[in-house]
Amino acid sequence: MVKTFEKTAVNKVVRAAKRASYDRGEVYDILDSGMVCHIGFSVEEQTFVIPTIYVRFENRIYIHGANKSRMLAMLQKGITPCVTVTHLDGLVLARSAFHHSMNYRSVVLFGKATFIEDKEEKIKAMELITEQLLKGRWKEVRQPTEKEIEITTILAIEIESASAKIRKGGPVDEKEDYKLPIWAGHIPLHQHPLKIIADEHSAELEVPESVKSYMASKPN
Amino acid sequence: MVKTFEKTAVNKVVRAAKRASYDRGEVYDILDSGMVCHIGFSVEEQTFVIPTIYVRFENRIYIHGANKSRMLAMLQKGITPCVTVTHLDGLVLARSAFHHSMNYRSVVLFGKATFIEDKEEKIKAMELITEQLLKGRWKEVRQPTEKEIEITTILAIEIESASAKIRKGGPVDEKEDYKLPIWAGHIPLHQHPLKIIADEHSAELEVPESVKSYMASKPN
Repeated sequence: MVKTFEKTAVNKVVRAAKRASYDRGEVYDILDSGMVCHIGFSVEEQTFVIPTIYVRFENRIYIHGANKSRMLAMLQKGITPCVTVTHLDGLVLARSAFHHSMNYRSVVLFGKATFIEDKEEKIKAMELITEQLLKGRWKEVRQPTEKEIEITTILAIEIESASAKIRKGGPVDEKEDYKLPIWAGHIPLHQHPLKIIADEHSAELEVPESVKSYMASKPN
Repeated sequence: MVKTFEKTAVNKVVRAAKRASYDRGEVYDILDSGMVCHIGFSVEEQTFVIPTIYVRFENRIYIHGANKSRMLAMLQKGITPCVTVTHLDGLVLARSAFHHSMNYRSVVLFGKATFIEDKEEKIKAMELITEQLLKGRWKEVRQPTEKEIEITTILAIEIESASAKIRKGGPVDEKEDYKLPIWAGHIPLHQHPLKIIADEHSAELEVPESVKSYMASKPN
């Protein structure tokens, strides 16, 4: 597989193109750091943007849902949705109001959705999604029943085209503003867990490995 | 102004409708807790979803950008974009793989975009956006020049229709699964600042009030 996504009219970054990347590894890294994507599709003249859980596996992403959803009904019609993942990484505080910004990593990707019918692939996707939520969780929990597998819709979106956009580091001010006595810098942000809340039937049970490892992996 | 958004074919929540709200206050609260939205619009047959900074003010949101962007060019044509804001609030860890979920608050809104030409309103929107990034920052920094105001495009999207969707609390398992010796619960997540990084010209300057208040407002 080629290392970069071809730059086309669809995935080409127009604005702030110096922050763009078409590198497959970079796109995958950003996708792998998230668990919520925003899927865009249109119904007649109206566009909808719906947040949903996803996981990347090889060159596709899996999403799941119930048969009832409008999004899945539309995707079944063979349109090519746009899927966007954004991580807000920090506040960029410049000397001028104009140069205030955010640090972020985002991916915009395009690809047709396929409904997964094969039972083994459905279970595999369910495992990947659960593991994306919390690594190590799948083997700790009650596995899906035949009924649960049946009523879960799994969609694979093959990544046909994608681009990443990244901003990092401190502010960039106008040359003459550096002499102003105004503090400038940036504040990194990250998604941080608060205290674990066991449900009322779990109070006597030990916190599982998946949760312990997750909590240990987060900076304080 | 009526307290709820009318439920129509466009903003009606189809999937998990019990988590839906059309309450204006609730929609505004979710919008006011964020600073990145995902804007969806279509160019011919293809939908695009682009992340961008926003702020809500009264019944509209302001976004900004440079004239170069594809998104602003499209919005200028009078289409009604969809704007979605999502906060990931926690991991929901059930006894069964099937009932794993996320806690979240999201808003999906629709409205036509208007380009703001009035200079005073443009400056006001720039102030609101800067303040949404960091409360108290606007008055600390160098104000926009005539040129900066001119090259900044400000769009107002009047909220014609919207819905919120909220999931909170712990897992909901199948009745018979509660007797399994599997730990279940949830882990609240929040956007957390790491260490402030002053840029190289600010090392000798005192950290400003806006940054101090922001850091003090975050739980550890």
